[in-house]
Amino acid sequence: MIKAPSPNPQSRGPSDHDVRTQIVEAATEYFKRYGYEKTTVSDLAKAIGFSKAYIYKFFDSKQAIGEVICGNRLAEMRQSVDAAIADASSASDRFRRMFRAFVEAGSQLFFEDRKLYDIATTAALEPWPSVQAYERYVEELVANVIREGRESGEFERKTPLDEATGAICLVMKPYINPVLLQYNLDHAQEAAQHLSSLVLRSLAP
Amino acid sequence: MIKAPSPNPQSRGPSDHDVRTQIVEAATEYFKRYGYEKTTVSDLAKAIGFSKAYIYKFFDSKQAIGEVICGNRLAEMRQSVDAAIADASSASDRFRRMFRAFVEAGSQLFFEDRKLYDIATTAALEPWPSVQAYERYVEELVANVIREGRESGEFERKTPLDEATGAICLVMKPYINPVLLQYNLDHAQEAAQHLSSLVLRSLAP
Repeated sequence: MIKAPSPNPQSRGPSDHDVRTQIVEAATEYFKRYGYEKTTVSDLAKAIGFSKAYIYKFFDSKQAIGEVICGNRLAEMRQSVDAAIADASSASDRFRRMFRAFVEAGSQLFFEDRKLYDIATTAALEPWPSVQAYERYVEELVANVIREGRESGEFERKTPLDEATGAICLVMKPYINPVLLQYNLDHAQEAAQHLSSLVLRSLAP
Repeated sequence: MIKAPSPNPQSRGPSDHDVRTQIVEAATEYFKRYGYEKTTVSDLAKAIGFSKAYIYKFFDSKQAIGEVICGNRLAEMRQSVDAAIADASSASDRFRRMFRAFVEAGSQLFFEDRKLYDIATTAALEPWPSVQAYERYVEELVANVIREGRESGEFERKTPLDEATGAICLVMKPYINPVLLQYNLDHAQEAAQHLSSLVLRSLAP
């Protein structure tokens, strides 16, 4: 149990930033064990030894805590996708690696932290700002790969960039969005492979 | 309330086939109102005025009744898709019409018979034999369109037919499978249009 620091700003307690981090870390562990949906801020406060009022000093709502957890996890997923595509040999290779890395990152979240996956599905259904930012990241990655392939002559240049990008994001969505991915897990890696081939055929000059 | 005919085979009652139809029709109406998942065969028996034992003479389980309802509905959906593609002017046109018709048929089921949609999602999750047959029908339609376009010179001929067919079915799946379609409804028609264009680009010679 984490001892609540004094809320008095004059005291030599931990900084607000430290307390926020402490709350988020404790909440992450708590949600991993008991899930996000059914937990209240009271449950959380009791479990981590803070008063409910004290938690509300730092976060407006349970969702505000969930948002930070979700954002942290999405940042990790972005890092693993960025790492997977960093040394690709061509735009086609980069696209295949990217799609595979997205599926891996999503599947890992599902299988390793089943309870945290609940936050992800809630976040994706609403969707929360962190998820909207992630969707923009996916779109930008896809647009960049298309641009790269057009410059190198690997891909056609007729289709408007935003049209090609939007359609490819739709193809990938069922394997990136956690609400849909949970129904596609058993064939996700194989599907990503076949769909990558189809997308690359659609991009051929 | 429907009067139960005598189960005595000597009596001049309705034929077994008629009774089955009667049970299915009454069950369809009942499920439309109260949903499939939470209804038991006892509820159904009470509502339609048959004994539970009598219903079990004709159907092994609630699922067996659901299977017939699901099969009937899928047959209607096939008819509407077949009608939509019958007078297409080219393989590309047939593909676009087909994708649009699948989305329309699925969306209609969702919005008009929200409670029957529960049967569809249950059937798709397991999946029931009627759903497996429907998936084979989708695959055959897609393969036929590709064959047609290859013969007419509209489509490329390099990619193995089963590979192209499988990947295209994966693209369409989130808009055909009711479990996934329910999360894609708000943008399903627009998505089908953009995805059709992408698929046709992937098929270009």
